[in-house]
Amino acid sequence: MNELQRFLEDLRSFNAEREWSQFHDPKNLSMLLTSEAGELLALLRWVPNTEADAYASQPAARQQLTEEIGDVGIALLLLCDRLGIDLLLALRAKLDLNRAKYPVEQSRGRWTKSES
Amino acid sequence: MNELQRFLEDLRSFNAEREWSQFHDPKNLSMLLTSEAGELLALLRWVPNTEADAYASQPAARQQLTEEIGDVGIALLLLCDRLGIDLLLALRAKLDLNRAKYPVEQSRGRWTKSES
Amino acid sequence: MNELQRFLEDLRSFNAEREWSQFHDPKNLSMLLTSEAGELLALLRWVPNTEADAYASQPAARQQLTEEIGDVGIALLLLCDRLGIDLLLALRAKLDLNRAKYPVEQSRGRWTKSES
Amino acid sequence: MNELQRFLEDLRSFNAEREWSQFHDPKNLSMLLTSEAGELLALLRWVPNTEADAYASQPAARQQLTEEIGDVGIALLLLCDRLGIDLLLALRAKLDLNRAKYPVEQSRGRWTKSES
Repeated sequence: MNELQRFLEDLRSFNAEREWSQFHDPKNLSMLLTSEAGELLALLRWVPNTEADAYASQPAARQQLTEEIGDVGIALLLLCDRLGIDLLLALRAKLDLNRAKYPVEQSRGRWTKSES
Repeated sequence: MNELQRFLEDLRSFNAEREWSQFHDPKNLSMLLTSEAGELLALLRWVPNTEADAYASQPAARQQLTEEIGDVGIALLLLCDRLGIDLLLALRAKLDLNRAKYPVEQSRGRWTKSES
Repeated sequence: MNELQRFLEDLRSFNAEREWSQFHDPKNLSMLLTSEAGELLALLRWVPNTEADAYASQPAARQQLTEEIGDVGIALLLLCDRLGIDLLLALRAKLDLNRAKYPVEQSRGRWTKSES
Repeated sequence: MNELQRFLEDLRSFNAEREWSQFHDPKNLSMLLTSEAGELLALLRWVPNTEADAYASQPAARQQLTEEIGDVGIALLLLCDRLGIDLLLALRAKLDLNRAKYPVEQSRGRWTKSES
């Protein structure tokens, strides 16, 4: 069992104790995920691109960003768990798709609308 | 090195080959994360709560959901990497905060606006 | 001048007094819009579809929803104003596109992934 | 009847013809709104702040932004209509709240995390 799986076990226990899985259907979890991502987005909405790294390194901002990253990650893991999807397999599969979609030569130093 | 770290190494190589880290400041990555979460949300916006599990188990929907989960996870890892934040530590820290914020007895079977 | 335009005049004055237009480039405003939409989403993430209308009619929930709708609408108008886009023209143009995209006979009583 | 109300009448007819109001409970509409906002966000995620105005003025980008603004506005009006909320009243009420929350002297030229 790897570290991510160990965390998932703890997360399951946390929710089981609170009897929250009744609320955690895939639809509700997709809303949790996006609303938590929106909170992270809000932290950076007025920070210029050129100041974003410096801003994020300040202790207070870093703490807020870390908490929001925790929220987004928890929501993502809850969704994966409900769907029976292995996050690491999903990550690897998507990176393989992206390798095919964005060939190195055509993609170097360029972004496109659909880049992800 | 655990599996998540091995994936992160592959992700770094993928982006280095394409010279994309110039676009990956924390602000832009927060936008990537939220827009990818929004695509996942779109898959479920017309599906009733009561049908969400069944819907998500259909092969075509499951494939789409898996791809969007991959996109969200990649964006989250890119953001963690840029910020120098360890995702697993952020997850554990947030779960600890949630344990304090949502005591079992007061939280059992109930959701609140701020639950996360 | 219609009511929406009168409100836009007030909104411009509000921002001019605070010298906030320096922060209101299209990128930042797209982040404002989405993060405010995410706050609205958060209000309904644990409410089942079948209870959403009843929930939204409770005074406290209605007040919260009204405030978030105000935030989203303000962000949308600020973005339109920055881009020099007339919201009503954009609405009419999009409804015309949707009429062509979703013919009545094929669309009746059915949703599709891309429906909007 | 003002222009916004006239558009709302057309929007109601469009949805009535397609029998779509059955899908348009407040929860689903909050998901529509946020996923459409996420599409708008995606258009600008790789554009630097300093280039955002120029980017948005290019015909192709402007057309895409206009369409996404139309989608977001339609979702917002559908939600207002379902909830029986007058958008213009919600806008005015929120701007009044913001006037109290962000006094001119303390807010001039400064943004805060919660600014909206």
